[in-house]
Amino acid sequence: MAEANRGIQSSYIDASGIRMHCLRGGVGRPLMLLHGWPEWSHAWRPVMKRLMDRYDLVAPDFRGFGDSQKTSLKPSKDAAPDVLASDILGVADGLGFDNFGIVAHDVGSFVAQELVRQVPERVAGLFFFNCAYPGIGARWVEPRHLTETWYQFFHQMPGVAELIGSSRDACRIYLRHFLTHWSYRDDTFDDELELWVDNFMKPGNLQGGFNWYLSSHATRMAVIEGTAPAHAPIRTPTRVFWGEHDPLYKRAWTDRLPDFFSDLQLDFAPNAGHFVHYETPDTASAEIRRFFGSIGY
Amino acid sequence: MAEANRGIQSSYIDASGIRMHCLRGGVGRPLMLLHGWPEWSHAWRPVMKRLMDRYDLVAPDFRGFGDSQKTSLKPSKDAAPDVLASDILGVADGLGFDNFGIVAHDVGSFVAQELVRQVPERVAGLFFFNCAYPGIGARWVEPRHLTETWYQFFHQMPGVAELIGSSRDACRIYLRHFLTHWSYRDDTFDDELELWVDNFMKPGNLQGGFNWYLSSHATRMAVIEGTAPAHAPIRTPTRVFWGEHDPLYKRAWTDRLPDFFSDLQLDFAPNAGHFVHYETPDTASAEIRRFFGSIGY
Repeated sequence: MAEANRGIQSSYIDASGIRMHCLRGGVGRPLMLLHGWPEWSHAWRPVMKRLMDRYDLVAPDFRGFGDSQKTSLKPSKDAAPDVLASDILGVADGLGFDNFGIVAHDVGSFVAQELVRQVPERVAGLFFFNCAYPGIGARWVEPRHLTETWYQFFHQMPGVAELIGSSRDACRIYLRHFLTHWSYRDDTFDDELELWVDNFMKPGNLQGGFNWYLSSHATRMAVIEGTAPAHAPIRTPTRVFWGEHDPLYKRAWTDRLPDFFSDLQLDFAPNAGHFVHYETPDTASAEIRRFFGSIGY
Repeated sequence: MAEANRGIQSSYIDASGIRMHCLRGGVGRPLMLLHGWPEWSHAWRPVMKRLMDRYDLVAPDFRGFGDSQKTSLKPSKDAAPDVLASDILGVADGLGFDNFGIVAHDVGSFVAQELVRQVPERVAGLFFFNCAYPGIGARWVEPRHLTETWYQFFHQMPGVAELIGSSRDACRIYLRHFLTHWSYRDDTFDDELELWVDNFMKPGNLQGGFNWYLSSHATRMAVIEGTAPAHAPIRTPTRVFWGEHDPLYKRAWTDRLPDFFSDLQLDFAPNAGHFVHYETPDTASAEIRRFFGSIGY
């Protein structure tokens, strides 16, 4: 067992009728690591390496992403937050995890909140980096913020996957924009940029990511227009460690977190933008370790 | 002279330090035809052919578009509405037009309003198809309209010209989206799509178009945020013939036209979307002829 867990390995799990790919490594209590866009499980490797002595780390690729099944190669709304949450629960069931911690940001933060509302008894704690939560509200589309959030609407355009996937060059230019612009240091992803292009040029992966935007559009609009159903605050112990230089998820947007998470610790991650786990993995890992330790997990 | 004007010809005019390309044809009183994005002078050919018996028609390419000079091959804010208006005035001066009519839509409508405010005495009449005017206000960015207007923000992205110009395929996919989606019949531009790709793949032409969006961003934001300077209504005789199926410039947005144009005739163009002049050139030309006739021009 110690031998098998020395490294980070790929595994596939048939979860509720869909074949999910995960990276897995480490020994200890289980932690599920939920990625964002434009990412996949790979983005968790720096954090996984640093926590393998303490946790059984599982980083799934959401449907349509990475090496998980493409449920549609065409534009589809089959990847709404509740569907992705069911997929992740399917992975947890497949691995025999009764109870687990969640670490998430971006897309993953939508999914984590959906999942913890469905099965609060199964989630020991929630650790969020920059977190898409309903309290952001109409700020997503404030006029001066639209130079940041246009992509959420562009990703609804018919043919967007055909356009961005028209060549490796096109794909690289597009991904590089987000990876540099959303990072505190714009060279953060330079060494691995071609891996990102490799991943998103795999058949279906660009459309898979855009299908998240098609599928979550109604939820996002309800948040923006203030018509989302009200939920009781999430009572699971929650730690938010928000990259303070994220130009997309602005620092000021943390103000309403206490209305949505009743057991909350909030701090800001220095020297980091949107990809705290990838930009500053030492700090990110230490904070994850500290939080789950503090709740006796 | 009759011989020379039998066809539509290219000509170049050195206007206020910039080399402007125009299409020109016809005999009679001068009409300036001001194009939109993604267009250039060529888009006026169907209308020009139908009005050559009656008017001296001049369709300039705005700076950065078509075969006019590229003042910058890089992202630049040197193409604001007042600058484009000066370029057009330079063309009028170069051609010796003391007084002229204007036919415009989209980008051209911004420029026409700027021009008529600068030199009202030189403009006999204004004929607009779908017209970007300050009364549209915050409706540009209503949440449910952002699936239409995201491109105005995407065009601010560093690298957008590199992305869309990464190949003819990429360029074609992108242009085709707007040309089909904004038209009432989605096959309107099928026969000439490759001409559009040819034009926008000319060095600098994609960036030239995007520089319009960079340059007009401040003006657009002021309109959206309600901080644009108030102007007295334009008193020049104005005819608006608004494509009733334009998904971008919505029919309902005509409601405030009377606040901005005091001598206004408004009607809706049937069976047309955003490109009324190209989609329904018979009707469009007949309306232009009728309007300028009605004001004795």
